[in-house]
Amino acid sequence: MAKILIRGALLVPVDEKRPDCFYGDVLIADNRIAAIAERPDTLEESRADQVIKGEKLIITPGLVNTHGHAAMTLFRSYADDMPLKDWLERKIWPIEEHLTGDDIYWGTMLAIAEMLKGGTTTFADMYFFMESVAEAVAESGIRAVLSRGLIGFGDSAEKGLKETSAFIDNWHGAEGGRINVTLGPHAPYTCPPAFLKKVIAMAGKTDRPLQIHLSETKSEVEDSMREHNKSPIELVYDLGLFDHKVTAAHCVHVSDHDIALMAGKNVAVAHNPGSNLKLGSGIAPIAKMLQSGIKVGIGTDGASSNNNLDMIEEMRLAALLAKGVAMDPTLVNARTALQMATALGAEALFLENTGMLREGCQADLIGLKYDRPHLTPLHDPLAHLVYAAAAADVDLVMVDGRLLLERGELKTLDEEKIMAEAGRCAGRLVKAKKEKEGEV
Amino acid sequence: MAKILIRGALLVPVDEKRPDCFYGDVLIADNRIAAIAERPDTLEESRADQVIKGEKLIITPGLVNTHGHAAMTLFRSYADDMPLKDWLERKIWPIEEHLTGDDIYWGTMLAIAEMLKGGTTTFADMYFFMESVAEAVAESGIRAVLSRGLIGFGDSAEKGLKETSAFIDNWHGAEGGRINVTLGPHAPYTCPPAFLKKVIAMAGKTDRPLQIHLSETKSEVEDSMREHNKSPIELVYDLGLFDHKVTAAHCVHVSDHDIALMAGKNVAVAHNPGSNLKLGSGIAPIAKMLQSGIKVGIGTDGASSNNNLDMIEEMRLAALLAKGVAMDPTLVNARTALQMATALGAEALFLENTGMLREGCQADLIGLKYDRPHLTPLHDPLAHLVYAAAAADVDLVMVDGRLLLERGELKTLDEEKIMAEAGRCAGRLVKAKKEKEGEV
Repeated sequence: MAKILIRGALLVPVDEKRPDCFYGDVLIADNRIAAIAERPDTLEESRADQVIKGEKLIITPGLVNTHGHAAMTLFRSYADDMPLKDWLERKIWPIEEHLTGDDIYWGTMLAIAEMLKGGTTTFADMYFFMESVAEAVAESGIRAVLSRGLIGFGDSAEKGLKETSAFIDNWHGAEGGRINVTLGPHAPYTCPPAFLKKVIAMAGKTDRPLQIHLSETKSEVEDSMREHNKSPIELVYDLGLFDHKVTAAHCVHVSDHDIALMAGKNVAVAHNPGSNLKLGSGIAPIAKMLQSGIKVGIGTDGASSNNNLDMIEEMRLAALLAKGVAMDPTLVNARTALQMATALGAEALFLENTGMLREGCQADLIGLKYDRPHLTPLHDPLAHLVYAAAAADVDLVMVDGRLLLERGELKTLDEEKIMAEAGRCAGRLVKAKKEKEGEV
Repeated sequence: MAKILIRGALLVPVDEKRPDCFYGDVLIADNRIAAIAERPDTLEESRADQVIKGEKLIITPGLVNTHGHAAMTLFRSYADDMPLKDWLERKIWPIEEHLTGDDIYWGTMLAIAEMLKGGTTTFADMYFFMESVAEAVAESGIRAVLSRGLIGFGDSAEKGLKETSAFIDNWHGAEGGRINVTLGPHAPYTCPPAFLKKVIAMAGKTDRPLQIHLSETKSEVEDSMREHNKSPIELVYDLGLFDHKVTAAHCVHVSDHDIALMAGKNVAVAHNPGSNLKLGSGIAPIAKMLQSGIKVGIGTDGASSNNNLDMIEEMRLAALLAKGVAMDPTLVNARTALQMATALGAEALFLENTGMLREGCQADLIGLKYDRPHLTPLHDPLAHLVYAAAAADVDLVMVDGRLLLERGELKTLDEEKIMAEAGRCAGRLVKAKKEKEGEV
């Protein structure tokens, strides 16, 4: 791969070794950050195959979306403002049953187009037809952590495990390590203990991390207490899940004891503030989790409950909510929020050397245009990123040393075609659901 | 003024008489909506001086920002994540004391540029040097409700009343009614009862509405209970404030009794969810207020505590927060949120026939491009506006029948110059504060 030099940009490294923002240069060689100059226009242009002028550009690490179901873009604004049970039983599940690999491919492509345009360079995904997701990831150039969602009931239980095993064999480490496969037991309430034990055994055998939904809603916790006399987190702890690398999504309704169990086992959390609010699930106590040393990343969840995949908005919401709920404006400050959306998010997905502008780290970075009214004046670029910036400010995106967005334009994807195909798939799905309901 | 026809657009009227979205035409004559066709390409082009193709454009009423301090854009990301007292006493007040009319003019221009680009067509403002604010409003073409912020202590008390009186004489009803002047007693804790009585008397004499901050923080309410044995809302109710038209900003810490007092007197509320979270003030119980029949609009507050003036983001936050806090996803649905940001917001500012696409209403409307990944597919345009759209989707803005933004470009303002001048003012202010602190 080529050497790319970004010259004279405003760098926000998100690196405790370089806490300040400064005008400088970044040299990328292959898929790594090779050099950083702390003064602008210092690194020689002759060292690079391509030079990008960083004027009016904030360069910062790419955003890491730690939880979602990418192809649910097809159900964006399809069903809103409904009680959770109705939303799932009358809208989402009946339409999901018509999904094909083709839908998943185009829905995921749509998600990737949106995410890249908004500065996301890595996303975690848990859904079905994961081979189609992996193909979209491979073609687009984005980095991903993928798991086949596992439900532990009926025929689908064994099928899911087999598909996971094949998916690891076929795709883990593909594209020079850009594609990571993990195990995806959906949740304790959809994966009974006996099944979870099988998944845990597979984690031991394959040495792959796990993604799981934990304690998303109050009723989930109440049901677990009634059935097992344990919270969902106590339950999976006792089963030995936390003896492996785990990214726990949501963790909205967690006790101090739950938090202590997670912190003691280095369980990471994917915080999805927008989705948790929109579905009426509640607000996760992330300030407490962070204080306990838990690595908390940020996720958008699926577009059916968000309804966009805008990580800047999600990062801002994480910071604002933590302050507002505790009535303490010092909690989750701008630096912490940006860390959660970058380096901490990468750690929460067990990715190494990712989410920082530091020599030797993965060359996953983004550039935002700051010559815009809503980013003027420029008292504090880091605070701007968290509290004032927007997805549309993202002008440049690099993943694994490759430019995927330049001057706001996608380089590897045909945006028009993706929107048309995703629209076609969404239309077909709505029609299929209606036809089936008409038959009944 | 000219007749403008928007043909074949996707209309979201926010009008209970036309609850559905449809492809249609809108004809604007002078500063009013003259005709709406409920089928696309129906109104004849010959009826208009200018025809705008509405293809891939959602047309909806302009957004109404019901509370803010526009020129505080100069302090955007100047001080964040601080305890409220330190933030005010060590950062905001000491820099505000160096403000001049020139700063206010350019800070307000910056705010207007940002607001127009994000689809805001009306804003409420309470600050100082209001003649400079009115000039910026006049030049830009935006609609505004302006009040000179009144503090009831010392010399500034009488000065403020005099300036208010002159401001009404000079500017109320100016620009064909685009500029509205109201009275701006800052808050009960900065306006003692004797002073508030004078302001109330002036409201009676001038028949102008009032804007006031009420019950923004917990400590404000506690202090009021200690000093007066009344909540701030009970206090101003007893003083007779609510016998006039009042827009009460914040109302975060309100009792059921407070809500009943406000509802009984048709007091309107300006809800500022982002600012309230960021400053750690808390979360206003807007679902309860709306259920009591209170007209709740949405505001951004100043950019120093937000840190942008993005009304789409603010509208989304209002809907999401109400659901999340009450753990009820049916509260503040997309339609209600959009109403709050448009028609209800206009009513909360006592503006008539504003905030709706309806024949005879003010021609304040916006167009958003929907051929974008994050707005694909198009299951529900209204839900898209609230849950998925972004300020940068705004492509067209009309205020009072005049196009102020076309194809995303400001028509009446020199964006580059405004950013440069605002940057200059911000730099000067920071320097002046530092120099004064150095002297001490």
